[in-house]
Amino acid sequence: MPGSSDWRTYGPPDLDRVLTAALDLFARQGFHATSIRDIAAAANLSVPGLYHHYRSKQHVLVALVTAVLHDLLARSRAALASGESQDPLTRLDLLVECLLRFHMVRRDQAFVASAETRSLTGPDREPYVALRDQVQDLLEQAIREAGASGQVDVDDARDAARGVATLCVGVATWYRSDGPLAPEEIVRRQLALVHGMLHAAPRP
Amino acid sequence: MPGSSDWRTYGPPDLDRVLTAALDLFARQGFHATSIRDIAAAANLSVPGLYHHYRSKQHVLVALVTAVLHDLLARSRAALASGESQDPLTRLDLLVECLLRFHMVRRDQAFVASAETRSLTGPDREPYVALRDQVQDLLEQAIREAGASGQVDVDDARDAARGVATLCVGVATWYRSDGPLAPEEIVRRQLALVHGMLHAAPRP
Repeated sequence: MPGSSDWRTYGPPDLDRVLTAALDLFARQGFHATSIRDIAAAANLSVPGLYHHYRSKQHVLVALVTAVLHDLLARSRAALASGESQDPLTRLDLLVECLLRFHMVRRDQAFVASAETRSLTGPDREPYVALRDQVQDLLEQAIREAGASGQVDVDDARDAARGVATLCVGVATWYRSDGPLAPEEIVRRQLALVHGMLHAAPRP
Repeated sequence: MPGSSDWRTYGPPDLDRVLTAALDLFARQGFHATSIRDIAAAANLSVPGLYHHYRSKQHVLVALVTAVLHDLLARSRAALASGESQDPLTRLDLLVECLLRFHMVRRDQAFVASAETRSLTGPDREPYVALRDQVQDLLEQAIREAGASGQVDVDDARDAARGVATLCVGVATWYRSDGPLAPEEIVRRQLALVHGMLHAAPRP
């Protein structure tokens, strides 16, 4: 998990070999089309060896999605903490930058965590929803604080937080690491859209 | 296809029984996990009967996705045409309303057209991309016209169009027909976010 200074730094994903194999298979062909046998083969394990760690394919998905969201949540908290001594809009900007970078760098993970979570049902869905809500709450809270300081002006912080999150998540659908824009420029442009959406006061 | 007055009206989807069955299966379990045999059984056809109309599962997906986008494009043009005598921002608002309603009413179709099109490769992907780009172009053009009339103020109409489209598409991920907000209220709130994002001048 990244410390408060390195939320912008991404190494290889911190996933065990089962989850690494599952991420690749779920992203390429989907959860339902992937068998436990496929995952075991890609992870270079026997099927009983895999079952020793995960008792079902559904549990592999739960473990993968919660690992992804734990990483996003830790980075989000670190981004906010890195702006601790700054004004609320600067902290909000850091959080938005963190969400944008995550959805650029971890595209496959973001895709699986949104498209394949339709396959999570019943109690298996709960940890995913709880973590997702925590990220959303951080964003809503940051918007409320920037609103209280008069730096943004929104009718409904919850609606606004959902709109901002939608923009950040959406980047994963079109960003290409070999595309024409550097991540910094994408962050700059998306922040301009976010500031408009939130009626942010111009910077002094 | 809807005429210029009825882009807000939705009947049952205008899909043949093969595409209706495929939509349901692709939305619930995904393209890769669905076999031609599954689609034929759900459509109450023999496998050779299905192959008489569609030569592969990939072609079923192409036909489904292009039907969805043709519907969206026809409704989008009708929405713009219904505001023909109005100012550019009103026309833009009608187009955004049309995109929002489509993604609320046709959630499953929207989901398949975004999540499952990763499975479209090579030349089969082209009609889908061309139609998607046409919808995006309508939005970009409407933003440019509202910019030219001084009703909105954006740095880059293309970026802005992508941001607006992302918000509209995102509604499909959280809208529930039994949720607390009526579609009209959702349209009103999302339009407020869009107006912020585009720095729209306040209405007189």
